[in-house]
Amino acid sequence: MTTNWPTNKQWILRKRPEGDISAEDLAFIDAPVRDLEDGEVLVRNIYLSLDPTNRIWMSDQDQYMPPVALGEVMRGGTIGVVEASRSSRFQPGDLVNPGLGGWQAYTIGHEDAVNPVPSLPGIPLTAFMSVLGATGLTAYFGLMDIGKPQPGETVVVSAAAGAVGSIVGQIAKLKGCRVIGIAGGPDKCRWLVEELGFDGAIDYKSEDVGAALDRLCPNGIDVNFENVGGKIMDAVFTRMNLNGRMALCGMISTYNKDGLVAGPADFAHTLMKRILIKGFIITDYLPRAGEAFAELAPWVMEGKIKWKAFAVDGLENAAEAVKRLFTGDHDGKLLIRISPEP
Amino acid sequence: MTTNWPTNKQWILRKRPEGDISAEDLAFIDAPVRDLEDGEVLVRNIYLSLDPTNRIWMSDQDQYMPPVALGEVMRGGTIGVVEASRSSRFQPGDLVNPGLGGWQAYTIGHEDAVNPVPSLPGIPLTAFMSVLGATGLTAYFGLMDIGKPQPGETVVVSAAAGAVGSIVGQIAKLKGCRVIGIAGGPDKCRWLVEELGFDGAIDYKSEDVGAALDRLCPNGIDVNFENVGGKIMDAVFTRMNLNGRMALCGMISTYNKDGLVAGPADFAHTLMKRILIKGFIITDYLPRAGEAFAELAPWVMEGKIKWKAFAVDGLENAAEAVKRLFTGDHDGKLLIRISPEP
Repeated sequence: MTTNWPTNKQWILRKRPEGDISAEDLAFIDAPVRDLEDGEVLVRNIYLSLDPTNRIWMSDQDQYMPPVALGEVMRGGTIGVVEASRSSRFQPGDLVNPGLGGWQAYTIGHEDAVNPVPSLPGIPLTAFMSVLGATGLTAYFGLMDIGKPQPGETVVVSAAAGAVGSIVGQIAKLKGCRVIGIAGGPDKCRWLVEELGFDGAIDYKSEDVGAALDRLCPNGIDVNFENVGGKIMDAVFTRMNLNGRMALCGMISTYNKDGLVAGPADFAHTLMKRILIKGFIITDYLPRAGEAFAELAPWVMEGKIKWKAFAVDGLENAAEAVKRLFTGDHDGKLLIRISPEP
Repeated sequence: MTTNWPTNKQWILRKRPEGDISAEDLAFIDAPVRDLEDGEVLVRNIYLSLDPTNRIWMSDQDQYMPPVALGEVMRGGTIGVVEASRSSRFQPGDLVNPGLGGWQAYTIGHEDAVNPVPSLPGIPLTAFMSVLGATGLTAYFGLMDIGKPQPGETVVVSAAAGAVGSIVGQIAKLKGCRVIGIAGGPDKCRWLVEELGFDGAIDYKSEDVGAALDRLCPNGIDVNFENVGGKIMDAVFTRMNLNGRMALCGMISTYNKDGLVAGPADFAHTLMKRILIKGFIITDYLPRAGEAFAELAPWVMEGKIKWKAFAVDGLENAAEAVKRLFTGDHDGKLLIRISPEP
C-alpha cells in the first residue's frame, strides 16, 4: 500500500447524447480509490484512447457491448503504470494495459485482466495506444482477414487519414495493392500521398467522390475498408468489382444521427457482383493479436509504417477532445495524456 | 442430318419490361434451324426452366451476365433430347442439358457446352430441372458454403415454398437446424410444416412477419437464406444473431420495381453483430456441382428431400407463365413442357 493513497478523477456518463456529444452528457468528478484486494493492481493511467466507438457506447442503441450505464465511469482504453500491487505478477513501475481502464486517473485491475506493455527499442509508449494497440490490430485484421487483399488489387479506405485508416492503407501498400484514400481536406490528402505512399487521395469535402473514384480506380475496387458509411460508402460500393470485399469497421458519419441507417443504396450490386460484406469488432480478434503484432512491430521499427498520435493534455479535457473525432479536427490517433510518462 | 429438318419456334426479347413483364415485351416467332457444324448437336428441348432471374436478364440493369440483347432469343435453361449430332460424344436419343438452351424449341449446342443428363432409378427427368439441377445447386451452395449452418442453429428462408427455398429448408433440417420459412398463403405454409418438416412457417400475406419471427425464433436467427429482399429481409435481418450469415440469393420483391433498392434498413446491425452478407450466383459454383450432387442425389432417391415441378404445357405459353413467379401462382419449380419426354 502506498502511504499517499490517491483520490481518483473520473468522467461519469450523466445522460445519453442526442446528436453530437455535449458537455452536459458527462460529469467530471472526484471519487475515492478503494483498497486493493488480493491479485489486484492500482494503475495510474497515462494515456486514454479516444475512439469513434465512444459515441456508440454512450448511446443505448443495440451494440456489441452493453452500453455504458448512466452513472458509470465512461469506458475507454488506457495504458498506465503500476503504483501499487497485490499481485505477484506486477511490480510498482511496470507499464501495463489494464484493459478498458476507463476515463479516469486511476484504475484498479485484476492481474488476469492486466497485460504488460512490451518494450521495443526506439518505440514510444504512444505506439502501443495506436499502431501497436487496438488501432493497429483493427486495421490489420479488418484488412487481412476480411479484405484479403491480393497484389495488384485496388483497395479504397474511407476516413483514410484517421488512426485506423492510415494504417490500413500502408498495410495494403506493403501487400502490393493500389491504395486510394478518402479524407477531409487537402492537408490530409497530401499527407496520405506524399508521406504514406497512397496512390491517390480524394478530398470528400471538395471533390465529387464518385467521379474521383472513377478517375483513380480505373479497374474498379476490390476491397473497401469502410469507416464512414452513408454516401461515401455508397460511392465506393457501387464501384466494387466481382467478388469484392467490404470490411465494415465503422460508420462514423452516422453515429451522431438518430434513427436507422440503411445499407448500400444499390443492394442488388451485392448479388450481381457477389460481394462479401462483413462487420467486425476488434475484440473478436484479440486472441489472434500475436499474428498482427508479428507483422506490425517489425514494420513500425523499420519505419515502413508511419503513424501519428495527437495527445491532448489533461483528463479534464476529454469530453471536449472526443468531439474532434467527429469534426476531423485532429491529426493521428487521438489520445488524452492523463499523467506523465515515467 | 435428319431428312425432316425442323423449323424452330423462339421467344425473342422485343423490349425491356417496365415494371411487371408484359406480353408486349416478347415475341413468339418461327425461325429456321441452320445446318450443324462439326462438333455440334441439335437438341429438341423438352423442358424450359422459368426463374426469377429471367426478369433481371430482360432488364439492362448492371447484372451478373450481359442482359439479353433486344432481338435475341430469351435466355433460359433447358433439357432436351439429341435429334441430330455431328459430335462423336452424343447420339440421337441422348438426354442432354445444352446449357442455357433458351426459350426455343430447338437448340444447337457445341459438344463442349452440352452435358449428358444422368439417369437415376426412379427419378423423373423433371428432377434434373429442379432439385438435381441449378435450383438444387443454388439451394445447396448458398446454404452450405455461405450459411454454414451448424446443428441447433436457427435458419430462416424467405420465398420458402419456392423451388429453391423449399430445398434450402429441407437441407437445413437434414443438417440439424431449426428452420422457419416465410411464404405467401396458408396452403404453402401448411405444406412447409406438414409435408417438408419445417419447424414453423410465416404467411407474410396475413401475419406481421417481425412478430412471428419473434415467436418462432426465440433464440434469434443464425442463417438467413434470402430470396425476397425489402421489408421481409429487414424483418429477418434485425433479428440476426452475433456472427449471423446472410446468403443473398435473390430479391424477387424488387425485380419488377424501377430504381435502386437499398440494403438492410438497420445496416449498423451488420457491424454490431459482425454479420456476414454474401451475394452469390449459382454459375460460380458449377465447377463444384459434384459436391452438391453427391449429397443431394441420395437424399432425393431416399425421399428425404421432397420437391415439386409445375410444368405448363406449350412453349407458346412461356411469356404468360413466367409472370407466375412474381405472383406466387404456381406450386414448385416452374417449367415449360416444350415437347414430350422420349
